Amino acid sequence: MKILVLGGDGYLGWPTAMHLSARGHEVAVVDNYLRRRLATEEDVDPLYAVPNLHERATLWREASGNSIGVHIGDLCDWEFCAGVFSSFRPDAVVHYAEQPAAPYSMLNRRAASLTLHNNLGVTANTIFAVREFAPDAHIVKLGTMGEYGTPDIDIEEGWLDIEHKGRKDRFLFPRQAGSLYHTTKVMDTDLLWYYVRMWGLRVTDLMQGPVYGVFTDENQADERLLPFYSYDEIFGTVLNRFVIQAVCGHPLTVYGAGGQTRGYLNIRDTLNCVRLSIENPADAGELRIFNQFTETFSVNDLAGRVKRVGDELGMNVEIRSFPNPRKEKEEHYYNPAHTGLLELGLEPHFLTDEVLAQLMQFVQRHEAQIREDKIRRDIKWD
Amino acid sequence: MKILVLGGDGYLGWPTAMHLSARGHEVAVVDNYLRRRLATEEDVDPLYAVPNLHERATLWREASGNSIGVHIGDLCDWEFCAGVFSSFRPDAVVHYAEQPAAPYSMLNRRAASLTLHNNLGVTANTIFAVREFAPDAHIVKLGTMGEYGTPDIDIEEGWLDIEHKGRKDRFLFPRQAGSLYHTTKVMDTDLLWYYVRMWGLRVTDLMQGPVYGVFTDENQADERLLPFYSYDEIFGTVLNRFVIQAVCGHPLTVYGAGGQTRGYLNIRDTLNCVRLSIENPADAGELRIFNQFTETFSVNDLAGRVKRVGDELGMNVEIRSFPNPRKEKEEHYYNPAHTGLLELGLEPHFLTDEVLAQLMQFVQRHEAQIREDKIRRDIKWD
Repeated sequence: MKILVLGGDGYLGWPTAMHLSARGHEVAVVDNYLRRRLATEEDVDPLYAVPNLHERATLWREASGNSIGVHIGDLCDWEFCAGVFSSFRPDAVVHYAEQPAAPYSMLNRRAASLTLHNNLGVTANTIFAVREFAPDAHIVKLGTMGEYGTPDIDIEEGWLDIEHKGRKDRFLFPRQAGSLYHTTKVMDTDLLWYYVRMWGLRVTDLMQGPVYGVFTDENQADERLLPFYSYDEIFGTVLNRFVIQAVCGHPLTVYGAGGQTRGYLNIRDTLNCVRLSIENPADAGELRIFNQFTETFSVNDLAGRVKRVGDELGMNVEIRSFPNPRKEKEEHYYNPAHTGLLELGLEPHFLTDEVLAQLMQFVQRHEAQIREDKIRRDIKWD
Repeated sequence: MKILVLGGDGYLGWPTAMHLSARGHEVAVVDNYLRRRLATEEDVDPLYAVPNLHERATLWREASGNSIGVHIGDLCDWEFCAGVFSSFRPDAVVHYAEQPAAPYSMLNRRAASLTLHNNLGVTANTIFAVREFAPDAHIVKLGTMGEYGTPDIDIEEGWLDIEHKGRKDRFLFPRQAGSLYHTTKVMDTDLLWYYVRMWGLRVTDLMQGPVYGVFTDENQADERLLPFYSYDEIFGTVLNRFVIQAVCGHPLTVYGAGGQTRGYLNIRDTLNCVRLSIENPADAGELRIFNQFTETFSVNDLAGRVKRVGDELGMNVEIRSFPNPRKEKEEHYYNPAHTGLLELGLEPHFLTDEVLAQLMQFVQRHEAQIREDKIRRDIKWD
């Protein structure tokens, strides 16, 4: 299949592109390097330097013999967007092209506006471009489990049958997100669901939990093919951050009580979930929604595991509760369904001590590059 | 109170500004004349010319002795927005400043993009400006009943208590709108609800049905103070359009089966609903939602009434079913609650034959200005 990966430079975008390419698909990536620019502006560069997309495509061709097309530009710019879609005419579109950091979206007004306009603008242009140039293409949209927030009822996969005063109907599962970034994802869902109903688009919305890890089958041969490893407060995800903190001797930054529970997954599973969705597309006129994670952990669970494995590796890991800069429930009910992707054939990579030890040993090799002063920044939600 | 009316040039914005001014409030209006510009671009000017905002403010001062401040500019432009809020420091903000036409939002890609970016951009800047310059101000946001769509269950006022698998929680009532315009209003709600939770904003969301009429207490003395009367397919609301059609001998344009049912209200009631909301503000940290309409009618009901009254006035009104250019249910369940504003003291002006006859006779005086070729345009939803 011809697959366009929007946001193909990102933490997940590039590994996804290689994974799909390795499976025999014709892949092109699109990115405007927004993620790199923001990291530079905020002085929070990743653990190690990552080649640009043209360089990565060359390295990948050398490693695999497969080509990945590279388009650099801003998908909010219709002329650019239309040019990419009209020349490539994809069968499937993987949409990662969003400002991806919740803390960045809460940094200040400019950052909030950028997040809102970028994320909605790209989603809208993607919809319009599919309609105009590839009307049968399947849009695989990366949503987030964060769209649901932490309700006091079980979280279903995207939809909820409601009985009210003796009558019934089916609706999108209620969404109330915990950051502006996550709220833009809710708005993406509104927009996609609207055009699915009006225009019969085929869309899969992957409600993904926080991802950890950097290793995939495709980057084993050449470390230059690894994705970004961010560990700062803005762009780093929690488990990747804890690993860095353990290695450099910084106390693990548990926010408040640490009972915040989410569904997590290994980066390898992200790639498989996206691929399984593409290879088993949604129907025309269908918004198919999967909850994309493999295990739930509280922050305290994660900290405890990192401490155990770190201590076994001879680190002396301290866990410390910091005042919570976010506005969120620190103890809450959390019971989300996640059977859809398993039914499509997902075989989860769970968070074993071996997986964690491998990641910690990898980070140890880069220990000299850790900038400990970048770990905390205390971006406040209110 | 100091009240800022965003979108103060619009069909409802200007009547609201005068109404609040007449009740002793200090009012300023903000507009960028977007509505006028789009009507000119699409060649669908209203029934009669309407003075600009500076002229209207002068006429109002002559009629009432009260001043209304006028700020012309684009609220999507943060510099302009910040300037208005920091100088006026409102106690309440009435937010009408959106591209208001569902058919316009479905016209083409450019119109859809404009609607999305304008409506979300103004709402975001309003939130940021209130936070920065008037943190205790009450935002009265015009939403729309169209956000709910036409579900098979009773529509509550904004919220729904859900019991699921033996557990309970309260959520925003499910929203699934019938046009891109209405979908941007859903997204406004997402955004406002998020910042209400994070920043403790005080917000009232008025889920308004289609409005009819042009007469208010404040424009009786001088017809130059009347609002726009649009009757074209893009900017006209259904009952105002039917009145024009009856007067000029055009068949009443019922779409499809005509069972489409909505909650309607007289323009006088809009003004009272907004004023009552302002004079009884939401609490800090509260998103208060009212369903703002007084009666439900199907399109066939409205057509029948216009025919009856028109025929009594000597018109020979024909009702005709046209192929429906929209994608919507033409027969459906519809039972929305609307008690909140009545409890605040709203005294409805119902759609009597006298109200309809007065409007039809007013339009008869302007009959020569009706451009019959502007009534239908057939903007298709798919």
